Formats: sequence, C-alpha cells, structure tokens
Amino acid sequence: MKNIAVLLSGSGVFDGSEIHESVLTLLALSKAGASYQCFAPNVDQLHVVNHLTGEVQENESRNVLVESARIARGEVQDMSKMDINTFDALIVPGGFGAAKNLCNFAINGKDCNIQPSVEAFIREFAIANKPVGMMCIAPVMMPIIYGKSALGTIGNDIDTAMAFNEMGGHHQEATVDQIVVDQTNKVVTTPAYMLATSIAEANSGIEKLVKQILLMV
Amino acid sequence: MKNIAVLLSGSGVFDGSEIHESVLTLLALSKAGASYQCFAPNVDQLHVVNHLTGEVQENESRNVLVESARIARGEVQDMSKMDINTFDALIVPGGFGAAKNLCNFAINGKDCNIQPSVEAFIREFAIANKPVGMMCIAPVMMPIIYGKSALGTIGNDIDTAMAFNEMGGHHQEATVDQIVVDQTNKVVTTPAYMLATSIAEANSGIEKLVKQILLMV
Repeated sequence: MKNIAVLLSGSGVFDGSEIHESVLTLLALSKAGASYQCFAPNVDQLHVVNHLTGEVQENESRNVLVESARIARGEVQDMSKMDINTFDALIVPGGFGAAKNLCNFAINGKDCNIQPSVEAFIREFAIANKPVGMMCIAPVMMPIIYGKSALGTIGNDIDTAMAFNEMGGHHQEATVDQIVVDQTNKVVTTPAYMLATSIAEANSGIEKLVKQILLMV
Repeated sequence: MKNIAVLLSGSGVFDGSEIHESVLTLLALSKAGASYQCFAPNVDQLHVVNHLTGEVQENESRNVLVESARIARGEVQDMSKMDINTFDALIVPGGFGAAKNLCNFAINGKDCNIQPSVEAFIREFAIANKPVGMMCIAPVMMPIIYGKSALGTIGNDIDTAMAFNEMGGHHQEATVDQIVVDQTNKVVTTPAYMLATSIAEANSGIEKLVKQILLMV
C-alpha cells in the first residue's frame, strides 16, 4: 500500500492549512486506497485570525501541531518524527499557514525563507527523489528546495508568479482544474483556492494532483 | 438552484463540528450544483479540546460561530439571521460539537435538551416540512424535534441507540454506507464517523445523504 505524508500548517485558511484542500487531499488518497499520515511542525502559529471578521487576534497564540490535529482527527505527528523510509511521497495543502507557518512568504515575498525544520523535512523527499505535491500558495517553497529547475504553478496571480520566477523557479500559468507536472523534480502543483470559486472546483485539481502523485510513486 | 443551510457547531471532532463530515457535505452539495450557506450559533463552546492530547483546555474559551468560520472560509452566518424562505433544506454534520454545543447529549444523554435557539432553528425546517439531514451523533436531536414518529440512525452503538429510543424515537441500525430515510418527517440520517474507519467510508454515506436530501427538496 502506498503511504503518503501530508504536511499541515494549522487549521483554517487565514492562519493555517486551508481546511477544504486538506480534507479533499485525504479523501482522494483514501478513495485511491493509499494510506496517509499527517504531520505538522511543533511551533506557534504566526497569527491567530478570527475567521469571521478576518482580524488578527493579537492576544492569542495557537500551536501549529495542536491545531493541525483538528483536521487529522487527532492523528497528527510532530514533523521531526518522520522516517523517510516509511513514506512514498509528500503532499502539502495550501492556506495562509503554508505562507505564514511553513515559510514566511506572506511577510517577505520573494525574499522568504522556509522554516528550517520544514525545509529539512521537504528536502528529505527531494533528496530521496520521492514525489511531492503542493497546492495553492505552497508551491512558493519550490524554488528554494529545487532551485532553477523548479517548474510549478500558483494559478495566474501576477505578483506571486513573478516572485516564483525571481526566486529562481519557472512559473507556468494554470487553471483551477489543471496540474503542472515538474518531471525533473517529481513535483506536482495545482492552484486550488488560489483560483477556485467553489469547493467542487478546488476538488477538480486536487483529485488530479493526488492521482498524479500516486502514479509517480 | 437548490439552496441548503448547513448548521455547524465549531471546528474539530472533539469540541466542534467533525471537519471531514462538514467538508464532505459541502463537496457533495457543490458537486450536485446546489448552493449552500453555513450557519452556527453565536455562543461559547462547552469545551476547548486539545486535539493532539484529547485533553480539555480548562483555561481557554472559543466561540462556536467564530470557529465554524474556519470550515466555511469565513462565509458563516449567525444562526439567528436565517430566513427560512431562502432555504430548501438543512444538513447538520456531526462531531462532539453537535452533542456539546447544539444540544447537551454529551452531558445529559437521554435527558438532553437542545440549545433553545438551535431548537427553534431546526424547528423552522420541520414546521415548513423541509428536508433535514443529520449525520453521526447529530440525529440524537431528532426525537426532541419530531417526537414519536422520529426514525433515524446513529449506526449501531447500543447505548446511543437506546437513548434515541428512550427519548421517544425509533432507532434503526445502519452501516456506514447506508442512509435511513424518515419519509414522514423528511429526515435523512447516516452514521458517518460513528462507524467510519476511513474518510472514504464516511464519504460513502454522506454522499447518499446529500443526494437523498436534494431529491426530497
């Protein structure tokens, strides 16, 4: 049975993993007969955002691992516990958590860094030549990991696409139901909620991404 | 276009709406071309549970409406704002939030009450003879709303099924991929994570529930 790691970054589009993207990823894996394990970094979130008002709750802090456990129904592991030999591939859902808690793209744009333990985690898959799927805003981490050969999509947002290119990657425009496959690095990307106007639209690209990742294993 | 109200109770299986059940409901509605609006009561959660450890965080409080907004990507409305004329049906996902924040079944079992504003909300659909779907533990509210004619399932948990019957309803055992249809009251129930051992299993019953609800509209 194929075993896939899913890297979460909290629980909620504005300060963590986008919940629909995460659940749709797990659904597609489960329907395909693959097993999965969710992981997250054991660090505080950059922000806690009130999702009703959109405001940052300045006096509140939440832990990325603890909040990610909500999406995983408790079954999440500290990222540092991952054994690369146990996993065939990695998928990283989007949401602002990917750009706030996994890397700091939301603050630094093209000058962003990946949180060191997260970078080490993703690099384990890259070094082992194992497929990696990234959706929504998560692909902005690609150029840092894969360098000049990185080919990916975040949809068609001009500023984000330019940042992707300035970081050294090659951005390819895509629609919500499309995936971009970087054959060199075995990375699959899809715009998901960078473009989706409904959960069914988001699902169309995510299903293709998961299918392609499982094909490449 | 059919327009369905979805009643949430927070965001996370142990203190709010079960996230997978909620997202799978929205996915099935969206794929069927229906529109939906998420609602939640503007009250504090009974508990905040650390989903990594399972422990109640005694010093923390969260608001049901605010946390439900995470599942709804911000697009949730205060339950008290609902206009029954705008909606064709209601679906209530499960999770402990249904038994802690919508009613107090988690504390009082068969002697439970529904939170008054929630009861009024669900009764609007019952009075208008509009279909209602309930999954997982949420059907324990059925006997209070529909009385002796209530026919529903929570799967096969003996204690919960007995409580359902002692509250005046008629419990019917079901497997995870089955729905029970109460034709008299236009209520559809499915066990979801009362029985599901995977998200694909949960989805099998939820897809059927949504399809049946849309048929009954």
